[in-house]
Amino acid sequence: MTIDIYISEVGPRDGLQSIKSIMPTEAKKAWVKAQYEAGTPEIEVGSFVPAKLLPQMADTAEITRYAASLEGLTVAVLAPNLHGVKAAVDNGAHKISVPFSMSESHSVKNVKKTHPQMLEEIARCCEYVKGISSSQKPTLEVGLSTAFGCTIEGEVKESTVVSMAEQVMALGVDEVGLSDTTGVGNPAQIKRLAQSIWQHCGRESLNGVHLHNTRGQGLANALMAVELGMTTLDSSLGGIGGCPWAPGASGNIVTEDLVFLLESMGLNTGIDINKLMQVRELVQQALPDESLYGFTPAAGLPKGWPYS
Amino acid sequence: MTIDIYISEVGPRDGLQSIKSIMPTEAKKAWVKAQYEAGTPEIEVGSFVPAKLLPQMADTAEITRYAASLEGLTVAVLAPNLHGVKAAVDNGAHKISVPFSMSESHSVKNVKKTHPQMLEEIARCCEYVKGISSSQKPTLEVGLSTAFGCTIEGEVKESTVVSMAEQVMALGVDEVGLSDTTGVGNPAQIKRLAQSIWQHCGRESLNGVHLHNTRGQGLANALMAVELGMTTLDSSLGGIGGCPWAPGASGNIVTEDLVFLLESMGLNTGIDINKLMQVRELVQQALPDESLYGFTPAAGLPKGWPYS
Repeated sequence: MTIDIYISEVGPRDGLQSIKSIMPTEAKKAWVKAQYEAGTPEIEVGSFVPAKLLPQMADTAEITRYAASLEGLTVAVLAPNLHGVKAAVDNGAHKISVPFSMSESHSVKNVKKTHPQMLEEIARCCEYVKGISSSQKPTLEVGLSTAFGCTIEGEVKESTVVSMAEQVMALGVDEVGLSDTTGVGNPAQIKRLAQSIWQHCGRESLNGVHLHNTRGQGLANALMAVELGMTTLDSSLGGIGGCPWAPGASGNIVTEDLVFLLESMGLNTGIDINKLMQVRELVQQALPDESLYGFTPAAGLPKGWPYS
Repeated sequence: MTIDIYISEVGPRDGLQSIKSIMPTEAKKAWVKAQYEAGTPEIEVGSFVPAKLLPQMADTAEITRYAASLEGLTVAVLAPNLHGVKAAVDNGAHKISVPFSMSESHSVKNVKKTHPQMLEEIARCCEYVKGISSSQKPTLEVGLSTAFGCTIEGEVKESTVVSMAEQVMALGVDEVGLSDTTGVGNPAQIKRLAQSIWQHCGRESLNGVHLHNTRGQGLANALMAVELGMTTLDSSLGGIGGCPWAPGASGNIVTEDLVFLLESMGLNTGIDINKLMQVRELVQQALPDESLYGFTPAAGLPKGWPYS
């Protein structure tokens, strides 16, 4: 059966980089394998950043190589600069996402680069990827982070987001993604941003969103993305990395709840939700000190679900 | 400013009837008053059922009379039969909702009535309301409960829901509402059910939904309802009455999160979200042994929100 919506599991990257526990390499491999076997089409397995900055991501190269050995899995990684992009390519990543914060204050704070400096870095990444032979060439995406608002700047102008999308597409990236990094976005905003980006950069420029559930609005935003025709949604198993009950929490949308929502609507994700629940147990065992979230796992599947 | 979406606060009814604590009458009045002063246009203040069945609702007559004294507030109540409808009218309710379970097993278990017996009871209610002078005449609604599925029967046929909607509209009720009593519904189902009911019973027959957040899908369902043109959404302050982390939990969608979602989208609810947070504190003080839920209260409002 054709997959209608591609769920990109970002737990091993966005989830694990946000918690104190460091998951052992073998446990990460077991997670990636189990999630692959549950039918997840794409997994963001890590981030190519210095280990001293994010020790949780120190084994990203090894995890990337392992994931790339699983046939049919799209292996995504995050890389903040050319150095990371090169490492990602060297280790066989299929999709590389370069985060570009639409809030310049956030960009400076996070990666010590202004908007012009980030555009230069992205240009270098594009140049490098262009030179790779087609059999090895990855998809290069720019994640437009804080596209919906920022904890430092507050509102982020939609015209800035659209302009930056245009500039990076002109530099030669394959696509952009909309990231609600701080969990402030709403469905009307997604609609305006997506339609404006499509108008300025073409329909193929934007196919995915990265949503957080900070204010409970994650699945409503996901629904709007799907209604608009987006085909890739990021989510994190057990919402790892953010506690919805703690102030400032910024957890990703929960994979289990997203799969339940989409499959209930008759949209095929390729994921077996019962197997996904087992992956959850495996991850909980590997992270005994961390809380996993999700409503569907707590309530269980409805009687007789899925309905005919 | 015109209200775009009417939020009906059902906490004093659906919330309070689902918890062990019995809120004192004076605390209920304080809640209703505070929520009214925060701009809530409609409050479902109680249920006219025997006090021995639901002791939490024993003071519904008094609360109804009190709420009816607050100018401009739409006072809604639940009544399962003619006896309850009469009491509701006697105490000045503006809107009376008669719950009618689309799952016959659920109906028999809950109110000891088969579908034909419920239709007879609803006919008697219509007959009674018809005879009331226009100045006192309430809106009579039938809440199509378990319309999305049932914990006893599993799937509930959509043709049953539409047929029952047609039959009760023909009996003379003013409108029907779609209730996801058990928190199993999805946006595609809301769309199919609403469009089918509108086709068979006319556009004015259905304007509201009653959603639960059991599997985290509540706000996605609310978004679909709004996109379809529904104008009334039920929700419960602090999601009182259901613990999202306990199996079988069936809490209503959280008013605070719903207001944040809608107001973020530029839809006016008439509700001041900062005042609503204060109502939350008041209710928590009156229910020290109960948990209140909600993501927006935990995370706080975004910096600079609402954006221009």
